[in-house]
Amino acid sequence: MKVLALTGGIGGAKLALGLAKVLAPDEVAFVVNTGDDFEHLGFHIAPDVDTLVYTLAGEANIDTGWGRQDESWHFMHAAEQFGLPTWFRLGDRDLALHVHRRQRLAEGATLTEVTRETCRRLGVAEPVLPMSNDPVRTRVLTPDGPLAFQHYFVRDRCEPAVTGFEFDGVEDAAINPEISALLAGTSGDGLRAIVICPSNPFVSVDPILALPGMRDMLRSAGVPIIAVSPIVGGRAIKGPTAKMMRELDIPAAAGAVARHYRDLITGFVLDECDASRESEVADLGLATTVTQTVMSNLDDRIALARDVLAFAGA
Amino acid sequence: MKVLALTGGIGGAKLALGLAKVLAPDEVAFVVNTGDDFEHLGFHIAPDVDTLVYTLAGEANIDTGWGRQDESWHFMHAAEQFGLPTWFRLGDRDLALHVHRRQRLAEGATLTEVTRETCRRLGVAEPVLPMSNDPVRTRVLTPDGPLAFQHYFVRDRCEPAVTGFEFDGVEDAAINPEISALLAGTSGDGLRAIVICPSNPFVSVDPILALPGMRDMLRSAGVPIIAVSPIVGGRAIKGPTAKMMRELDIPAAAGAVARHYRDLITGFVLDECDASRESEVADLGLATTVTQTVMSNLDDRIALARDVLAFAGA
Repeated sequence: MKVLALTGGIGGAKLALGLAKVLAPDEVAFVVNTGDDFEHLGFHIAPDVDTLVYTLAGEANIDTGWGRQDESWHFMHAAEQFGLPTWFRLGDRDLALHVHRRQRLAEGATLTEVTRETCRRLGVAEPVLPMSNDPVRTRVLTPDGPLAFQHYFVRDRCEPAVTGFEFDGVEDAAINPEISALLAGTSGDGLRAIVICPSNPFVSVDPILALPGMRDMLRSAGVPIIAVSPIVGGRAIKGPTAKMMRELDIPAAAGAVARHYRDLITGFVLDECDASRESEVADLGLATTVTQTVMSNLDDRIALARDVLAFAGA
Repeated sequence: MKVLALTGGIGGAKLALGLAKVLAPDEVAFVVNTGDDFEHLGFHIAPDVDTLVYTLAGEANIDTGWGRQDESWHFMHAAEQFGLPTWFRLGDRDLALHVHRRQRLAEGATLTEVTRETCRRLGVAEPVLPMSNDPVRTRVLTPDGPLAFQHYFVRDRCEPAVTGFEFDGVEDAAINPEISALLAGTSGDGLRAIVICPSNPFVSVDPILALPGMRDMLRSAGVPIIAVSPIVGGRAIKGPTAKMMRELDIPAAAGAVARHYRDLITGFVLDECDASRESEVADLGLATTVTQTVMSNLDDRIALARDVLAFAGA
């Protein structure tokens, strides 16, 4: 029986690593946002997929929060000399993953197939499933017009005010067939729970949920759907979630995240410092639990994974 | 008045550098073999063009004889982990040139345009002209079948015996229009001499000469055509020239190189240690000169360039 975990990049990947540590590789599968993907320098960049894969491989760069550990930047320095754009940094070792991916995509492999190969090469046994093999591109809407997600996120450092989001191509994107099979129960593996990791609801999880049929399939799986709040004490641990909520006139609070997911989830995990908000979430008709959700180290990740699984099983 | 120098990689690039040091940037142009080019890891690799450009830029890797100086190999090590072929080594800094080239070719730029941009970025003022913007691919014929040039040269370290050569695509390849214009006298620049650098006659110079119309255009330019022997004392300074000659049943001697070019050139430069062969070459109806052609350092390169220019002017 598998746990299916929906995740974006860094925040979600922390809980994903915890789940990978407490479950056997065939007891878990990860559904990863690809709305952040883009083409850059002729490479297919998949930030959330790569953050998760590097994290599970023990290869994540802890210092930067993205990219590969023990990284060097000789390519990047030389790229500057050639007038190539340098706002998105590709390390020398990280380039190998990208050259491999480009080669395989050019040969006709799907992003899922390439990701499986990447996992095998890096010793990751858990299934990492891009949400779709078709292109979906998140646009951040701002008063000055739409921005491609990485332009907003990396180039412009999340500075523009956000008025909304679009997921270009999502109407024509098919759910990754391996995810559909898991959700429909036709994969041979049963599901025991669905976990929405503490990722940004708007730009990490919503692109997954926006895939045609995804919400219905998740609900139809008939298992607990548990979301872990990415907002703790009114702040995001990392990234622009709280800033976005303020700009969207949504209170930057755990309860608002629960409301965001309320028509989908069955349970919600709040941090200890938001214990006073528990009844507010319960009033939405959701099961709740309160625990330490801030994951500073591997033990925290494992502890939260255990708590989430216990909550889902309760 | 320009000197047009035909060259391959390392040996030819040494004399090319000497010419660049004694001539103003508008007094010289380099015609470079692209028969060695190939697609690798999704990049367009142009070994002779790049060796020349890096040499002229003072960026050539002296230790390896190819690639860029101060190079690191983090990409390559990581590439191994992804099962990417590693027999052809691309350094981290060298990758920037290749990513730039791929980007620009994908945008529709010609190899000549990209090379001009590369030169500009690296501070090379002399025109570096790929022999053609169309693909020509040298195949080395062996008893076990044809080998793509880089498979023969790098992967198999020139070990297979050579029975001949083919230049795939050469019938349909047009001479680089900037070269045609120089040779036809329609570029606005006059020519004073054509120099065949001491490159491998079979795989560095013959692909250039095999372009439809090239031999006629060179002869019709009506200027001295001087070849510098790549064979000194029966040996090649670098590379498989002498080995190839033995396998092709051609004596590995300077005189045999002169005979190879005899229907094209007007003069031939022999090394001091081959002075005894001078009359043999003169008997072919060629002007001859004897000088030190082994270029161990920059002074040697400059001295040989001066000698060749003096010989061409005589």
